[in-house]
Amino acid sequence: MSASGLHVAVVGATGAVGQQMVQTLENRNFPIRKLTLLSSARSAGTKVSYNGQDIIVEEAKPESFEDVDIALFSAGGSISKLFAPEAVKRGAIVVDNTSAYRMDPDVPLVVPEVNEEDLRTHNGIIANPNCSTIQMVVALEPIRKKYGLSKVVVSTYQAVSGAGAAAIEELHTQSQDIIDGKEAKPEILPVKGDQKHYQIAFNAIPQIDKFQDNGYTFEEMKMINETKKIMHMPQLKVAATCVRLPVVTGHSESVYIELESENTTVSELQALLESAPGIVLQDRPEEQLYPMPAHSVGKNDVFVGRIRKDLDDQKGFHLWIVSDNLLKGAAWNSVQIAESLVKLGIVK
Amino acid sequence: MSASGLHVAVVGATGAVGQQMVQTLENRNFPIRKLTLLSSARSAGTKVSYNGQDIIVEEAKPESFEDVDIALFSAGGSISKLFAPEAVKRGAIVVDNTSAYRMDPDVPLVVPEVNEEDLRTHNGIIANPNCSTIQMVVALEPIRKKYGLSKVVVSTYQAVSGAGAAAIEELHTQSQDIIDGKEAKPEILPVKGDQKHYQIAFNAIPQIDKFQDNGYTFEEMKMINETKKIMHMPQLKVAATCVRLPVVTGHSESVYIELESENTTVSELQALLESAPGIVLQDRPEEQLYPMPAHSVGKNDVFVGRIRKDLDDQKGFHLWIVSDNLLKGAAWNSVQIAESLVKLGIVK
Repeated sequence: MSASGLHVAVVGATGAVGQQMVQTLENRNFPIRKLTLLSSARSAGTKVSYNGQDIIVEEAKPESFEDVDIALFSAGGSISKLFAPEAVKRGAIVVDNTSAYRMDPDVPLVVPEVNEEDLRTHNGIIANPNCSTIQMVVALEPIRKKYGLSKVVVSTYQAVSGAGAAAIEELHTQSQDIIDGKEAKPEILPVKGDQKHYQIAFNAIPQIDKFQDNGYTFEEMKMINETKKIMHMPQLKVAATCVRLPVVTGHSESVYIELESENTTVSELQALLESAPGIVLQDRPEEQLYPMPAHSVGKNDVFVGRIRKDLDDQKGFHLWIVSDNLLKGAAWNSVQIAESLVKLGIVK
Repeated sequence: MSASGLHVAVVGATGAVGQQMVQTLENRNFPIRKLTLLSSARSAGTKVSYNGQDIIVEEAKPESFEDVDIALFSAGGSISKLFAPEAVKRGAIVVDNTSAYRMDPDVPLVVPEVNEEDLRTHNGIIANPNCSTIQMVVALEPIRKKYGLSKVVVSTYQAVSGAGAAAIEELHTQSQDIIDGKEAKPEILPVKGDQKHYQIAFNAIPQIDKFQDNGYTFEEMKMINETKKIMHMPQLKVAATCVRLPVVTGHSESVYIELESENTTVSELQALLESAPGIVLQDRPEEQLYPMPAHSVGKNDVFVGRIRKDLDDQKGFHLWIVSDNLLKGAAWNSVQIAESLVKLGIVK
């Protein structure tokens, strides 16, 4: 920490994403004068390492946000609803990684590669989008800009770490039980607070978050609504099917898109995405080079490959998009927003 | 076996699918006078149980097919190319579960729920479609018949058993190694005969079969071409992205379709599929009822759920289709073709 930097708070510092936030702040050498780590009463007292020094996690209270410049929240929507206004009241800018404020018209929903300028319109709270949305819009935005975009149909392949540390533990325990010929005992996935739980090991569960009355899950509706908001395209056709897999970390997405312009080629899309911010192109089928979740872990990039032209529709293309859901999908995008706030002079 | 039945041969009787064929013949009480089990020289001598009696597997030779009425082939395309004509020459009807003859215009490609009548046009060989194709067309055909069908975009979630018994072993070994903190040693998947091999445990690999020059894999092109042939719809728009998962058995598919008729409702599609042959509807989101691979194992049915109307396109719908890839995807569809041959009086 340096004398001249900012006072940053991380709320939910002991969770799967919170820990990645602290680690990412360190890795990025973010200009920090003081780091305050906050949590529920239950986790208070835990020590978290930052730049070789142990910081004791404190219980979050309204007063905890006095003198804070930027507060990164990732402790569940109810905690954000409770404390984000308190932080704003005390002069902090909140970057909230829950779904609490994402669709609030007064709250910018930001992926810096796509709509960094929206940060200028903030009223104290900035929302970090859903993990599966972020990696998709990073890949789609350069395409939209150059060729126009009219339709998106995505099927996801999502890792259990999106459901927290207990879900990771459940996947490992169930995998071992099944290898040992024992029965799996599902207790958490697909949704901890829902009525039924299903085996995730060696299975695929087509439910992430609870169901809405229209038959879509909340996760699917997040992808649909957030994509339109981030890309400033209320008219964009977006459909999503979200599926949980026995993968620890790294979300994958099979995405079908329709462009506005005709006669675009695969090579043109590859060249465009290769030079686009935040993207690593991995698309050489002849060398079996394509993105995979196991190779994305620990990296900030969005990996794109398997780009194919639709065989029937001149405007149709298929892509395979992979990213570490805890980093670009959560912690890194939040820290990146904080970096943009500094860069744009919004936080001084 | 009864004195009045047929002489059936199974080629590849010791493989993952071949064993399921023998088991399915037994479960269905197929009218068998004599059962001849054939394999490569390497596996000859193995004993396989059928109706409580051990049958010794013999090395396949042209003469093995003397007096055979129906020969079920599942020993790889090169074996089919070598022996299927020999079997036909000797008066047998071949049901071939490899890709060797599927796109041959003189060979019917049959899923009995969809195009059973095509069996009448056979010239000795009948092809059994690719596993991922079969379960999809079973669900799409009733929809096509009633509402018309113009476009299909499918993303698959495929089990390793489609790549054989060694791939199942590889998934288990790798899973144990990773749980134990060791490094995974990929040797088989995604494609045994391809240059590179990748970890399948806790990962997702967007490659099944080798790549074609157009960037699609052979598996994807099989789904595209076979769907058009089986449904007699050369003009149908079909696109596929095929992905291998750490699931032992049970393929899942996220399918987006566009109908020809407008104003169809989810309830109408549910009612239609509920009474369609070979389908079990599992679609009650409010009870978290939807198809999953772990629940499909050992069953002949195609399970359909998560039926949703597209939120933008009046003609668009989304479905989630799951089936046991070794049964309806392979062994059961082959035996079902044999049953149809008897029922239609083609084999007597």
